[in-house]
Amino acid sequence: MPSRRKAVQFSRTGHPPDVVELVEVEIPDPGPGEIIVDIEAAPIAPSHILTLSGKYGAPPKLPAIPGYDALGTVVEVGPGVTRFRPGDRLSLPHGTGGWRQRSLVKADDVLVTFPPGGDPLQLAMLHANPPTAYLMLTRYVRLAPGDWVIQNAANSATGQYLAALAHHFGWRTVCVVRRPGPEAMLKKAGADVVVIDGPDLAARVKEATGGAHIGLAIDAVAGEATARLAACLGQKGIVVNYGLLSGEPCQVPPHDVVFREITLTGFWMHKWLTEKSNAPERAQMYALLRDLMLRGVLHAEIAATYPLSKAKEAVAHAIAPGRDGKILFTPQVEI
Amino acid sequence: MPSRRKAVQFSRTGHPPDVVELVEVEIPDPGPGEIIVDIEAAPIAPSHILTLSGKYGAPPKLPAIPGYDALGTVVEVGPGVTRFRPGDRLSLPHGTGGWRQRSLVKADDVLVTFPPGGDPLQLAMLHANPPTAYLMLTRYVRLAPGDWVIQNAANSATGQYLAALAHHFGWRTVCVVRRPGPEAMLKKAGADVVVIDGPDLAARVKEATGGAHIGLAIDAVAGEATARLAACLGQKGIVVNYGLLSGEPCQVPPHDVVFREITLTGFWMHKWLTEKSNAPERAQMYALLRDLMLRGVLHAEIAATYPLSKAKEAVAHAIAPGRDGKILFTPQVEI
Repeated sequence: MPSRRKAVQFSRTGHPPDVVELVEVEIPDPGPGEIIVDIEAAPIAPSHILTLSGKYGAPPKLPAIPGYDALGTVVEVGPGVTRFRPGDRLSLPHGTGGWRQRSLVKADDVLVTFPPGGDPLQLAMLHANPPTAYLMLTRYVRLAPGDWVIQNAANSATGQYLAALAHHFGWRTVCVVRRPGPEAMLKKAGADVVVIDGPDLAARVKEATGGAHIGLAIDAVAGEATARLAACLGQKGIVVNYGLLSGEPCQVPPHDVVFREITLTGFWMHKWLTEKSNAPERAQMYALLRDLMLRGVLHAEIAATYPLSKAKEAVAHAIAPGRDGKILFTPQVEI
Repeated sequence: MPSRRKAVQFSRTGHPPDVVELVEVEIPDPGPGEIIVDIEAAPIAPSHILTLSGKYGAPPKLPAIPGYDALGTVVEVGPGVTRFRPGDRLSLPHGTGGWRQRSLVKADDVLVTFPPGGDPLQLAMLHANPPTAYLMLTRYVRLAPGDWVIQNAANSATGQYLAALAHHFGWRTVCVVRRPGPEAMLKKAGADVVVIDGPDLAARVKEATGGAHIGLAIDAVAGEATARLAACLGQKGIVVNYGLLSGEPCQVPPHDVVFREITLTGFWMHKWLTEKSNAPERAQMYALLRDLMLRGVLHAEIAATYPLSKAKEAVAHAIAPGRDGKILFTPQVEI
């Protein structure tokens, strides 16, 4: 029978902690082909913050429940559903909105399922950040074993996944961070070199890598940070920007663009997921990343978990400067 | 027998008018396979100014004679040369240094020859700017008839060639200029829309084109001008930067890079010429552009001509703000 459960909703955009509110939503009984899923864990990502701020590239129709990724457990299946039974674990389909206790889902929309076991907080992060890291590493430059990649904001979840994936595939990473602290964590994740960002970044990277050619830079910061990464690249290098952390325009000196043939391009996971919605490529990638996550190759630091009732505190924590690690909702925890 | 002729030389980089000096060089007799060429006209281009300033991507060994393009007439041929005879007109091979009265050239290095006739000042500009315009129009985006391209610094020689080539091939151009004045000249060259640059550029371009999708932007200015062009582009648009006129880093907001999938890349004619030095593609392109120039399709405004003895004045004129039209040396003119 229909149930009522809590969810975090926003009806207007603005300062993120101000616009989220706790609501109750009615969950109807599952119809043919539908299932009911209880959400175990759902992360807060920079894309959610942009969405709440009104700065995201694909704004939802309001009011909306945020959340692009979440881990759920099937609690009820509708008529004709043979693929799932209660207790099965899955990633919520893209666009469902994961900051809630319970959701009605079309069984056919589910892309990723999990075997029993594994840390639910880690598994909840599979949907967005690991494929972002994977696709940025593989779509732009054909890397050979031993090749170098440089990334900034390396202590983000995506940064940790990128260091781990590169290490797994035999590529080397220069991980740029804003301040001392995450070196040991990043080295453990698979980073080869960890450096603090600054005006002389290129010189220090050159020294740390023995002057190696770097062909790919991954930029989450933008502004002058883009130019500092570009300066570390060799001839024909590519900067892939995927983040807006500084709020500033990406900068690349034309000397680098023209004479050193540096290209700046961008990656947007949402767009890729939408364009590849039925592609075998997408399912195969998620199968690979799920296995790497279950084996512990992919792991991200966690700063805190919050119940939905503490949504304002959770979102405020997610935008606090100097935070280390991901913030997640654990919607089945009430207080 | 060996002859002595005037040339413009620089032994150090700095403020361009300060570093150029008039010298006399000895021209040896032509050996087997060599020819002696008298230079009729040689333009001053932004790349020369960068070279003299020490900001060019491929600095020459000093002392050097500047000049990447020039029109010459054969005055003597060495033993075994059957391809040329005195009076034949040609483009000086890439890298010869055109700011001189006379040059020894290997006959096999000559890529472009001209039939009798035509305006020597126009023909002297074939080597660098027309292929720059042609390659930027054709290498990055597959344009269909009626498609739009936007460019800034449109009243430069390259900008005029680009408007003319686009019109010739059935593509439409939005030509962005810094101040009123060149509208009629650009319309005559083939521009469809001429607009003055400014903060609301995208809105005015949208209005002038009826909201047409623009997939390619050609940027010679860099700095914030890059972002203004990027804002005019549709989803997945490409900005090709080829100039450093503002001296500022290219700026593209990450919102455009990530959500609108805008890419920034660069084009450097020197690199292309070097990489394609023996390619049939290069010869075919020059044959096409030469014919378009002889037919008057390709034409650039000329501001002034100078003898080599007025090199400092010529270079000062070339870097003066507000100049309209190209500056060329006419080395056979003595005063």
